[in-house]
Amino acid sequence: MSAAKQNKGWKDKLHEIIYEADTPAGKLFDVILLVLILASILLVMLESVNHIDAKYHELLYIGEWIITIFFSIEYILRVITVKKPFKYIFSFYGILDLLSTIPMYISFVFAGSHALVTLRALRLLRVFRILKLARYLGASNQLKDSIIASRVKIFVFLFAVLISSVIFGTIMYLVEGEDNGFTNIPKSVYWCIVTLTTVGFGDIAPQTALGQFITTIIMILGYGIIAVPTGIVSAEYSRSMKKSDDEKTQQPPQKKLNLNTQRCSNCHEEYHDDDARFCKVCGTNLY
Amino acid sequence: MSAAKQNKGWKDKLHEIIYEADTPAGKLFDVILLVLILASILLVMLESVNHIDAKYHELLYIGEWIITIFFSIEYILRVITVKKPFKYIFSFYGILDLLSTIPMYISFVFAGSHALVTLRALRLLRVFRILKLARYLGASNQLKDSIIASRVKIFVFLFAVLISSVIFGTIMYLVEGEDNGFTNIPKSVYWCIVTLTTVGFGDIAPQTALGQFITTIIMILGYGIIAVPTGIVSAEYSRSMKKSDDEKTQQPPQKKLNLNTQRCSNCHEEYHDDDARFCKVCGTNLY
Amino acid sequence: MSAAKQNKGWKDKLHEIIYEADTPAGKLFDVILLVLILASILLVMLESVNHIDAKYHELLYIGEWIITIFFSIEYILRVITVKKPFKYIFSFYGILDLLSTIPMYISFVFAGSHALVTLRALRLLRVFRILKLARYLGASNQLKDSIIASRVKIFVFLFAVLISSVIFGTIMYLVEGEDNGFTNIPKSVYWCIVTLTTVGFGDIAPQTALGQFITTIIMILGYGIIAVPTGIVSAEYSRSMKKSDDEKTQQPPQKKLNLNTQRCSNCHEEYHDDDARFCKVCGTNLY
Amino acid sequence: MSAAKQNKGWKDKLHEIIYEADTPAGKLFDVILLVLILASILLVMLESVNHIDAKYHELLYIGEWIITIFFSIEYILRVITVKKPFKYIFSFYGILDLLSTIPMYISFVFAGSHALVTLRALRLLRVFRILKLARYLGASNQLKDSIIASRVKIFVFLFAVLISSVIFGTIMYLVEGEDNGFTNIPKSVYWCIVTLTTVGFGDIAPQTALGQFITTIIMILGYGIIAVPTGIVSAEYSRSMKKSDDEKTQQPPQKKLNLNTQRCSNCHEEYHDDDARFCKVCGTNLY
Repeated sequence: MSAAKQNKGWKDKLHEIIYEADTPAGKLFDVILLVLILASILLVMLESVNHIDAKYHELLYIGEWIITIFFSIEYILRVITVKKPFKYIFSFYGILDLLSTIPMYISFVFAGSHALVTLRALRLLRVFRILKLARYLGASNQLKDSIIASRVKIFVFLFAVLISSVIFGTIMYLVEGEDNGFTNIPKSVYWCIVTLTTVGFGDIAPQTALGQFITTIIMILGYGIIAVPTGIVSAEYSRSMKKSDDEKTQQPPQKKLNLNTQRCSNCHEEYHDDDARFCKVCGTNLY
Repeated sequence: MSAAKQNKGWKDKLHEIIYEADTPAGKLFDVILLVLILASILLVMLESVNHIDAKYHELLYIGEWIITIFFSIEYILRVITVKKPFKYIFSFYGILDLLSTIPMYISFVFAGSHALVTLRALRLLRVFRILKLARYLGASNQLKDSIIASRVKIFVFLFAVLISSVIFGTIMYLVEGEDNGFTNIPKSVYWCIVTLTTVGFGDIAPQTALGQFITTIIMILGYGIIAVPTGIVSAEYSRSMKKSDDEKTQQPPQKKLNLNTQRCSNCHEEYHDDDARFCKVCGTNLY
Repeated sequence: MSAAKQNKGWKDKLHEIIYEADTPAGKLFDVILLVLILASILLVMLESVNHIDAKYHELLYIGEWIITIFFSIEYILRVITVKKPFKYIFSFYGILDLLSTIPMYISFVFAGSHALVTLRALRLLRVFRILKLARYLGASNQLKDSIIASRVKIFVFLFAVLISSVIFGTIMYLVEGEDNGFTNIPKSVYWCIVTLTTVGFGDIAPQTALGQFITTIIMILGYGIIAVPTGIVSAEYSRSMKKSDDEKTQQPPQKKLNLNTQRCSNCHEEYHDDDARFCKVCGTNLY
Repeated sequence: MSAAKQNKGWKDKLHEIIYEADTPAGKLFDVILLVLILASILLVMLESVNHIDAKYHELLYIGEWIITIFFSIEYILRVITVKKPFKYIFSFYGILDLLSTIPMYISFVFAGSHALVTLRALRLLRVFRILKLARYLGASNQLKDSIIASRVKIFVFLFAVLISSVIFGTIMYLVEGEDNGFTNIPKSVYWCIVTLTTVGFGDIAPQTALGQFITTIIMILGYGIIAVPTGIVSAEYSRSMKKSDDEKTQQPPQKKLNLNTQRCSNCHEEYHDDDARFCKVCGTNLY
């Protein structure tokens, strides 16, 4: 094993640091990455606040460029150290990593576009991996399962919401008219969704008696509609939870959650066993 | 079978295209129909936006008329090709198809009424049939079942909401008075429902200390009330889901969902078996 | 039985008409009563609308007095025809019947108090009895049971909501101050409940950055808090429903719902069997 | 036993009165305490209302100081009568008791800080103990259990809410711009959470067509998101309730709730048996 380690070139070492979180160096790298992502989001937010930007513009600007350059180098290293770079480049995280650097460069051409840097927030999803929060991911999967199981019902539900919004929106446009803020049908439909979801901004509100009567119907409908997705998710979730309970009591768990963060530098395969020395897909040495 | 096909007149052929979605021509017809419905709704929406209408009024107007004429012809063909036209005319879709054409004609007499053209949105319900989304309909039916099963409870619940709204609305009218926007009892009742459903537009809001105190009670009540329909639907849905789970595990399914879209041109009967050659109700040849 | 009927005096006949809904006359009386209650509420509502009142003041005023006089006579008859009048007078419906007449008389002394006539809305609860909607009442009881079963938890929950509102309200008062609408602590607490319940009128809204940050915490808290009562009611309701399902499958129902509306004219006892000829409590002839 | 009682010094007697609620004197003390806490919160609230403060400033000020002095004495007595004072001082209630007195003293130095006196609201949590509402605490524990059981899922959920808020907030800032109230990104993120939680104050609302379209997506997302925590808590709660039901039917309860409020004056141990004469931890006489 130690022999295998010595044989590794700098690419392999970097690969281990950048992609994995099993070694101290790899862990440190990921922590620094997360801190920088958070710092970068904070910088963009602060920069958008006028009175802070007026005072510390220079500082914020420099800070942001330092982080962007770090991210750019990180991106290039990620591409270099992987043996099949295109697989990484077109993976979810690959695209995300690229998107989190280019807005700053584009901001030379289009002013304001650097605010898109907050897309870096999505990179925070790595937090789950780095902290080895497999159980968090487990919880997330259970959530995802119950959402997937009920996706057909949710589609039907959304379809119903949209059709009612279009119809009620048109009626309200006819009833209230442009003088009361319902200036056109799309705006009325927008208002209708605002009301159905019980958000109720109040920037547009019915003024006529008839309009308020129809609004009452919309609201009570919306009230009942809230019950539907909640009921669906609740029931599906209850079922998926019961199923996992039954499995626990009836039979020993047959596969455990994989907490290993090793990733093959050749084929990009994850989820190796803890004692795996070679990639189970392409046979590349993992150390 | 081919002999039966050759014997069919143009009426039967049209019937197959218009009413069914099993042949390529029938499928194409339905897709064109859905696209036109969506286009038509979009046209009416855009027309209501002043600055778009100012620019493209001619274009929108012509487009809308083309669609309306298409729908009118389609309606007439539907009536002609069915052997029992009155059964179609007074069916749900029959009335809907008529309603989706007449607002344009009425708009000659009453300006603005053509906005009702968005009623065409309801025709989009056909989307479920055309895409053979029987499983969507299944999901929808399960939803419908749990809503029907809990309709009595929901009636009791709505009754409670309305009685409390009337009483609290009157109290707020007395407490706040006309100066604070509670100009009359119906408006106060309307405000009360806005608050109970947690929509809270804020166009009317209590100003006096006593009014705000009563509002607090209304809101906490409304908060508790949200729990009731959600709990009902959730429990009913959970039960209906469990029942269907039990059925799946205990016995083989005895009838499968009918995905066939054939419709008898004589008696308008749907839900024929896939291998049916004659209408099971009146014996008319289905091909 | 016919002999027993002939022996009845006018009091007994009136008792049957007023209190019961088993005879055609009794049913008619109850329907008239409900229509009058609805009419009366409508009258008070319309009267509060200025432009309607300006036009039809006389008409509305006369209509209201006619109904009030009818209700007064009805109340007196109810007291007379019952053999133990005090039991009726101090019963829930007795107090309600009185309260639905006196606001009009008080309105001679205090202007505006006649708006309390809408308390008559509560009399609409009789609708359940008259329509023999025992199954509605059954549904209502199931609801009531699940609310009673969870009342301790709901108390704890409300306690938590109130303590958080007081604390967050005070903090917001200190942070935002009087200039931003948080003029005093009670108002801040009121605003806090408006926010926690997700009503959000927007008449008061945080203006400072710190205030908006704290509001974010309050809202996410409120979001989580919504889950609690819903979860409780949903779970309790699910349990009570399952229990009644189990009872149905395991043993034959041992008592059926009593749909009989006879009421003893002596001791005011309800819930007699359909074939009962004498009151089961005091032995008075029921016919 | 009576001999043991006579041997007690004043410290022990005070300890019994202050810390326990089993003797009439102890009960009276706790009731007075709760009333004073409520009175104190009311005083601070009223003082913040300008027109009340203008009239009764002296009265409110004196009342508040009387209560503060009482609380200070109570705090000192609590420290003195306990044999291990530091254990009390750094316990949850110890810190709370201190925090509920110091704001008044600090108000000499910093004006306004005495409003923090409403932190006394937290002392009201004692109400559960004094009323021996062990079953309330039981209910509260069941709630706590289901919240703890679902804390991982709720963390994942909150994480998702925050990431979406940051991203949608930035997009809305770019789309709507400073002219429409979205003056900076933190404010946009705040607005986004206001919308996602369906609070919808309406102090900031999208004005552009594109902004309103994105808002529609945010709202429908928020609508679906409401379903998630509700579903989680509901399912967890249902499970914990079922578990306790199963336990009840399968085996006799093995430990009952401890309603005893005795507390050892030496080691601060609670939860003694009703017939305990000596502390089960350190052997100190409990009487």
